[in-house]
Amino acid sequence: MSSEKTAIQPTRNQDFPEWYQQAVRAADLAENSPVRGCMVIKPWGYALWENIQKTLDKMLKETGHQNAYFPLFIPLRFMQKEAEHVEGFAKECAVVTHHRLEDSKDGLVPAGKLEEPLIIRPTSETIIGETFSKWIQSYRDLPLLINQWANVVRWEMRTRLFIRTTEFLWQEGHTAHATREEAWEETVSILNIYKRLSEEFMAVPVLTGEKSAAERFPGGESTLTIEAMMQDRKALQAGTSHFLGQNFAKAASIAFQNKSGQMDHVWTTSWGVTTRLIGGMVMVHGDDNGMVIPPKLAPSHVAILPIIKNQKDEGDILSYCDEIAGQIQKINYTGRSVEVVVDKRDMNAGEKSWGWIKKGIPITLEIGPRDMKNKAVFVSRRDKTRKERYSQDKTEFVSGLVNLLDEIQNNLYQKALDFQQANTHHLDDWKSFEEFFTPKNKEKPEIHGGFAHAHWCGSAQCEEKINASLSVSIRVVPSHGEPEKGTCIVCGSPSQGRVIFGKAY
Amino acid sequence: MSSEKTAIQPTRNQDFPEWYQQAVRAADLAENSPVRGCMVIKPWGYALWENIQKTLDKMLKETGHQNAYFPLFIPLRFMQKEAEHVEGFAKECAVVTHHRLEDSKDGLVPAGKLEEPLIIRPTSETIIGETFSKWIQSYRDLPLLINQWANVVRWEMRTRLFIRTTEFLWQEGHTAHATREEAWEETVSILNIYKRLSEEFMAVPVLTGEKSAAERFPGGESTLTIEAMMQDRKALQAGTSHFLGQNFAKAASIAFQNKSGQMDHVWTTSWGVTTRLIGGMVMVHGDDNGMVIPPKLAPSHVAILPIIKNQKDEGDILSYCDEIAGQIQKINYTGRSVEVVVDKRDMNAGEKSWGWIKKGIPITLEIGPRDMKNKAVFVSRRDKTRKERYSQDKTEFVSGLVNLLDEIQNNLYQKALDFQQANTHHLDDWKSFEEFFTPKNKEKPEIHGGFAHAHWCGSAQCEEKINASLSVSIRVVPSHGEPEKGTCIVCGSPSQGRVIFGKAY
Repeated sequence: MSSEKTAIQPTRNQDFPEWYQQAVRAADLAENSPVRGCMVIKPWGYALWENIQKTLDKMLKETGHQNAYFPLFIPLRFMQKEAEHVEGFAKECAVVTHHRLEDSKDGLVPAGKLEEPLIIRPTSETIIGETFSKWIQSYRDLPLLINQWANVVRWEMRTRLFIRTTEFLWQEGHTAHATREEAWEETVSILNIYKRLSEEFMAVPVLTGEKSAAERFPGGESTLTIEAMMQDRKALQAGTSHFLGQNFAKAASIAFQNKSGQMDHVWTTSWGVTTRLIGGMVMVHGDDNGMVIPPKLAPSHVAILPIIKNQKDEGDILSYCDEIAGQIQKINYTGRSVEVVVDKRDMNAGEKSWGWIKKGIPITLEIGPRDMKNKAVFVSRRDKTRKERYSQDKTEFVSGLVNLLDEIQNNLYQKALDFQQANTHHLDDWKSFEEFFTPKNKEKPEIHGGFAHAHWCGSAQCEEKINASLSVSIRVVPSHGEPEKGTCIVCGSPSQGRVIFGKAY
Repeated sequence: MSSEKTAIQPTRNQDFPEWYQQAVRAADLAENSPVRGCMVIKPWGYALWENIQKTLDKMLKETGHQNAYFPLFIPLRFMQKEAEHVEGFAKECAVVTHHRLEDSKDGLVPAGKLEEPLIIRPTSETIIGETFSKWIQSYRDLPLLINQWANVVRWEMRTRLFIRTTEFLWQEGHTAHATREEAWEETVSILNIYKRLSEEFMAVPVLTGEKSAAERFPGGESTLTIEAMMQDRKALQAGTSHFLGQNFAKAASIAFQNKSGQMDHVWTTSWGVTTRLIGGMVMVHGDDNGMVIPPKLAPSHVAILPIIKNQKDEGDILSYCDEIAGQIQKINYTGRSVEVVVDKRDMNAGEKSWGWIKKGIPITLEIGPRDMKNKAVFVSRRDKTRKERYSQDKTEFVSGLVNLLDEIQNNLYQKALDFQQANTHHLDDWKSFEEFFTPKNKEKPEIHGGFAHAHWCGSAQCEEKINASLSVSIRVVPSHGEPEKGTCIVCGSPSQGRVIFGKAY
């Protein structure tokens, strides 16, 4: 690949962060907006988000969750009710202080000062908690399983398309339960839904487990996470499910009468995934020619490119293409029609073909006079190289399409899993740990590291020391890790099991 | 009905505005939030919104529109580019001035003052126009047909659930075209889509036509509208489609090279419907027992209520109910399964049944031991009175269900159309016009008025005079009105045709 010209410059090896920005833009997924830190999600990127939404929404509804919608604004006094929570979000929130504009000698200026500033929601525990306190009176009102699809704002100083933006889209689930056990069960079951979304649909393998106290949601008792490995070997926190104990219930007075007639506070959870998932898919599946979209989430599955060499063939070739498209559209794949585009745009065939490659469409069919004559199609799979393109009888192609899409889906997952496993190591001493996380080559600082399974004594001090010296954090304390005695990689104190370290986005 | 006890107090006749608030709350559609002017959309209301979304989204995609997402924030300088536009929205916009909170002796206060204030989008013409100016270079990039599902904020002083709230949900379409004709065609074709959504799905008949200059979108050239009549005879503007000419294109420099190689500005349109539609359905279909939901948009179509009189029958009755539910779920109605709930909650049967009536579910089946024995179901239609309930063989019920749902849908539409027509009059002199729009009974101020077809000379002065004296405005200048000469109801000058007046929400 290194000697070939690639569609994305620089390549992943040359400069991964810049490759990422170029790949996102070349795929027409999103672009920076004129508003600081905010992105414009373009139609191809938004269609991918809609497919993520549909997939996850279905799983949430099947498990008894209902959608609702709560205000964008949070009065300052609500944020302040949970001390750790406001502390965690105060440094990065957009504050509305006025409710109109007024002419002045300097032009339009803010006017109509609000008595109490309003925060644009960075997350909605406080405002939803306030509402839950009115909805819940008795154990009969529980469990309450609510989800919201919404935009949120966190004033980030360094932003990157999809991965970290000031405004982003997400779903946030908020549930209330009668007992600690039920709330914990919900926290875990949502983590499993996120794992399924990621592995079965996004084709992104993830580690699951708990966060250390330092990485926990502000105000919560425990945060579960799914963590994926990008192709620069860094970790991406792809979804979190928080067990909030009774902290937010006490702050918002969400009380209920239990079966024995006594008053108690509910136990709550909250959980979310964001448009960040799209960035994750780019960094896991993308190659030096751009995005590669897993078929189960692809906005379109097949692009048909008519190759017109003589004007006289045009009509015949276009009808042949439309005929195949018609057959393809009738096929059902994972609950929806296979989506096909016949690309009739009047432009250079190579440019057209490269456009679809960069967008990451799973399959491209080139169809010229010879293909038509042979009742064939010329197939490119996005997960294979250009050299592996092949001609196939059109009926065979159509009847094998569902299998082919599944094969591509599985192939992407397997590739990602192989990469993750190849870059995951057990490390037992500080020297090898430090070496693992230190770039060998100053010019390519990204090509190092991965996931390190290492022993940790459990102290915040050792965790902080690793973070300060190597910018490495505990990504996951595995929930189902086999107990294994060892000694902390930093201080040598006894440890009951390994945790997983990595550099993170 | 007047002597019967009704589920909603007051009744529509007694106090329509208060009946509305009570009906919305009793149906569990929405409630006021602790944030000034913002509502919480509850699961039943949000599910209704999701069905509106799915229906409209499908129609928009079938006509070539693509979804995308643009920033929540609009820099002040963008708003100022179109003078009329900023004038129209400056008095009611939420302004973000700071990006964090800081501890002070008075507690947390806004800090990190922004160099330029950001407006929370009241509508997105300016920010989207800015983006379009980068996406569009040549006629090949046109038409550009974009839609966005989003929240917007307009700082309203007097709010009412769904009808007018500070934050609301909507879709906003934004399109760019090479010619005036194409842009106008788009404006009209969207109006027709809105009319279909309203009449075929919401079962709400609408008038269509153009707004007068005074009621036009700030910065646009022409606004088309659909207008519905509520049961208090007031008009609700239910959707608007704006022809923006080249105004916004010039403000944001959206220029393109046309087929002859010359540079020109594009022609743009914008259009939207909002969560207000839900309030419209309540005010059109609701009765003194609460909400009535048209089957095509109902979150659930059928509620099955097991009536258990002896504990020994419980198991049998519940399985009988589940069996019927299973059969119903297999039926397809307007592209989705018929949604059925078997309500097994442990509560009083009457309370349960009234709960579903207030929510407006189209059909309720009560099933007790006798029904089970007779292989029957006891059917209540929400569009009929309690006295019209009937027993039916269960197989017959199931096989006739699609027809029954259609019948209810059509019945709701016909009722609403009859009401609208009965309250629409041709008025030819100021005295009858004034009388029509003046309450006869001070205690029931809502029971008067309707739509008045009357002659108007076309002057803003006469329009303003009517508005000032009677709070009546021109709802629609009919697009396809038959030309009819007459004299202005106010000044007596010649008029070329009637326009439609009403009091509006």
